[in-house]
Amino acid sequence: MTEVIVLNGGSSSGKSGIVRCLQAVLPDPWLALGTDTLVDALPAVMRASDAGIEFAPDGEVTVGPEFRTLEAAWIEGIAAMARAGARVVVDEVFLGGADSQRRWQQALRGVEVLWVGVRCDSAVAAGREVARGDRAIGMAASQAESVHRGVVYDLEVDTTRTEAMECARAIAARVG
Amino acid sequence: MTEVIVLNGGSSSGKSGIVRCLQAVLPDPWLALGTDTLVDALPAVMRASDAGIEFAPDGEVTVGPEFRTLEAAWIEGIAAMARAGARVVVDEVFLGGADSQRRWQQALRGVEVLWVGVRCDSAVAAGREVARGDRAIGMAASQAESVHRGVVYDLEVDTTRTEAMECARAIAARVG
Amino acid sequence: MTEVIVLNGGSSSGKSGIVRCLQAVLPDPWLALGTDTLVDALPAVMRASDAGIEFAPDGEVTVGPEFRTLEAAWIEGIAAMARAGARVVVDEVFLGGADSQRRWQQALRGVEVLWVGVRCDSAVAAGREVARGDRAIGMAASQAESVHRGVVYDLEVDTTRTEAMECARAIAARVG
Amino acid sequence: MTEVIVLNGGSSSGKSGIVRCLQAVLPDPWLALGTDTLVDALPAVMRASDAGIEFAPDGEVTVGPEFRTLEAAWIEGIAAMARAGARVVVDEVFLGGADSQRRWQQALRGVEVLWVGVRCDSAVAAGREVARGDRAIGMAASQAESVHRGVVYDLEVDTTRTEAMECARAIAARVG
Repeated sequence: MTEVIVLNGGSSSGKSGIVRCLQAVLPDPWLALGTDTLVDALPAVMRASDAGIEFAPDGEVTVGPEFRTLEAAWIEGIAAMARAGARVVVDEVFLGGADSQRRWQQALRGVEVLWVGVRCDSAVAAGREVARGDRAIGMAASQAESVHRGVVYDLEVDTTRTEAMECARAIAARVG
Repeated sequence: MTEVIVLNGGSSSGKSGIVRCLQAVLPDPWLALGTDTLVDALPAVMRASDAGIEFAPDGEVTVGPEFRTLEAAWIEGIAAMARAGARVVVDEVFLGGADSQRRWQQALRGVEVLWVGVRCDSAVAAGREVARGDRAIGMAASQAESVHRGVVYDLEVDTTRTEAMECARAIAARVG
Repeated sequence: MTEVIVLNGGSSSGKSGIVRCLQAVLPDPWLALGTDTLVDALPAVMRASDAGIEFAPDGEVTVGPEFRTLEAAWIEGIAAMARAGARVVVDEVFLGGADSQRRWQQALRGVEVLWVGVRCDSAVAAGREVARGDRAIGMAASQAESVHRGVVYDLEVDTTRTEAMECARAIAARVG
Repeated sequence: MTEVIVLNGGSSSGKSGIVRCLQAVLPDPWLALGTDTLVDALPAVMRASDAGIEFAPDGEVTVGPEFRTLEAAWIEGIAAMARAGARVVVDEVFLGGADSQRRWQQALRGVEVLWVGVRCDSAVAAGREVARGDRAIGMAASQAESVHRGVVYDLEVDTTRTEAMECARAIAARVG
């Protein structure tokens, strides 16, 4: 039985919309957690410091050592939730590509995971970033390709011309 | 010179995204105001009373007499902003179709207006409503057609298969 | 009959809470509009440009000429709403002190206005700014005194040790 | 060394403000998680169903069996984060009083916890609920006393007449 679905994609690739559709179409209740949850949980000062996470004006994101420590514990916690019986959809941005996936794989050893890549044409994602109006301009373009580098998926969806609901149905069909 | 752009479309048809893209591509600064601004300005109690605005569980929206009074003054105020020199994009849901447009036309007499219809296939809008996760389910479907009934436009865009940014560019090309 | 209530106070002085309590205790429906509504209506780029409004890291706020033009039209629009029959509570930050009040007085000539000063001890407001977690740190302290300079009120309330609801009742008692 | 701080108090008692102040005054970075995080992670349909969590019009909250299952896994996950090295402030509403505390105590066995009660006079909390404008009216009053029934604390703070920052400093002084 699939215990965790990990969605990885760049900013404004449409992950959150797919997650909400997944929660609506999957018959069991799934928890939705992810990068945004973790960032909201950080002290305000860490969102703009060398030790924390930094959103540059051009959309580049860098993270410091204190963030890495909290993130590692956060990932362990989500793995523990899955082992304790919650089914969890994780909405992630693998800033480190394959390295990021390895961190999740290690924490989730023994847990049945469906790895999903969420792709979106870079120019289209950049336009949606403007349309959203709540993200630093440039993140979409800078992350569109880099977050997938070296990452291995069970399934990939592309939101460039496919609605979130349709992507969610394709993913749900692969959930055991 | 176009002084006001009125976008009319059902819930989850993609109006707000188009508005933010319009603000980004139009060379002058435009104010973005609309139904959501007005609803946020109402007393909490009016959002769930016979005298105010009511969101039924099936997404049907009804408005009472006290809402009509405040809305009429709100429309007059936006017309006054345009006459005082602000260019304004209005993001509207014409629940009353042609009647709603008539109210805006009367208030905006003497103001140069570009009327834009924002269409979206009903099933697609319903899926996006689920993906957004912050709207009463059913509004998108119930409004998709009805808000356009009898309304006359200078231009129509359809977000079913066209990105918000592309719609915004088409509208911007018509702004005098 | 009081047609407009203007509340002026620094950031994190507690104006928004008083506004929502006022809407709850006043028997008629009042619209709540203010600086935050206007800032939300601006193009994203104007919130961080010389022509728009700028929030410096230390909380200092400066506004440019294009903002002034839109703001003047916005104020005219609110005055027009009042003349058209809506009762409006305005939640303002008079960055220019007496000059800001003069702009509102000119637009609101002929309208019956209740002018209310919302004070809060600077150190207490700075603490509440941290507790809110959504404002640039430093705005509360930098605005606590300056926004009241030369401004004339019908009534002043102080949220340092008085709850928003109690302040709202004191204001409501003065509404004609 | 204190690994987890659990704050328990009714809705609108001021817990979130204290949490943000704690994150600002504590020298180490602490994650802030809580009931609101969990509710946001639920499928939309569970927020209004017999199996999930239900906010009645009078502010009464009831939770169903599916919520209990996810909540138990969530608590295990937070305990695992603490064991993996993250320091965590938990912002909780013990709807079941002593029973709720027992669930947390079992999951947190072996973890050093500081238990903090956050009290607020019922009438004052009810006024702040109106001032916030984003909560079902009635929750503050219905929870003010009941969430503390039978719960044992290391420390209690009362926000009725004490600022969030001052409460945070009192708690921080007890963090080992």
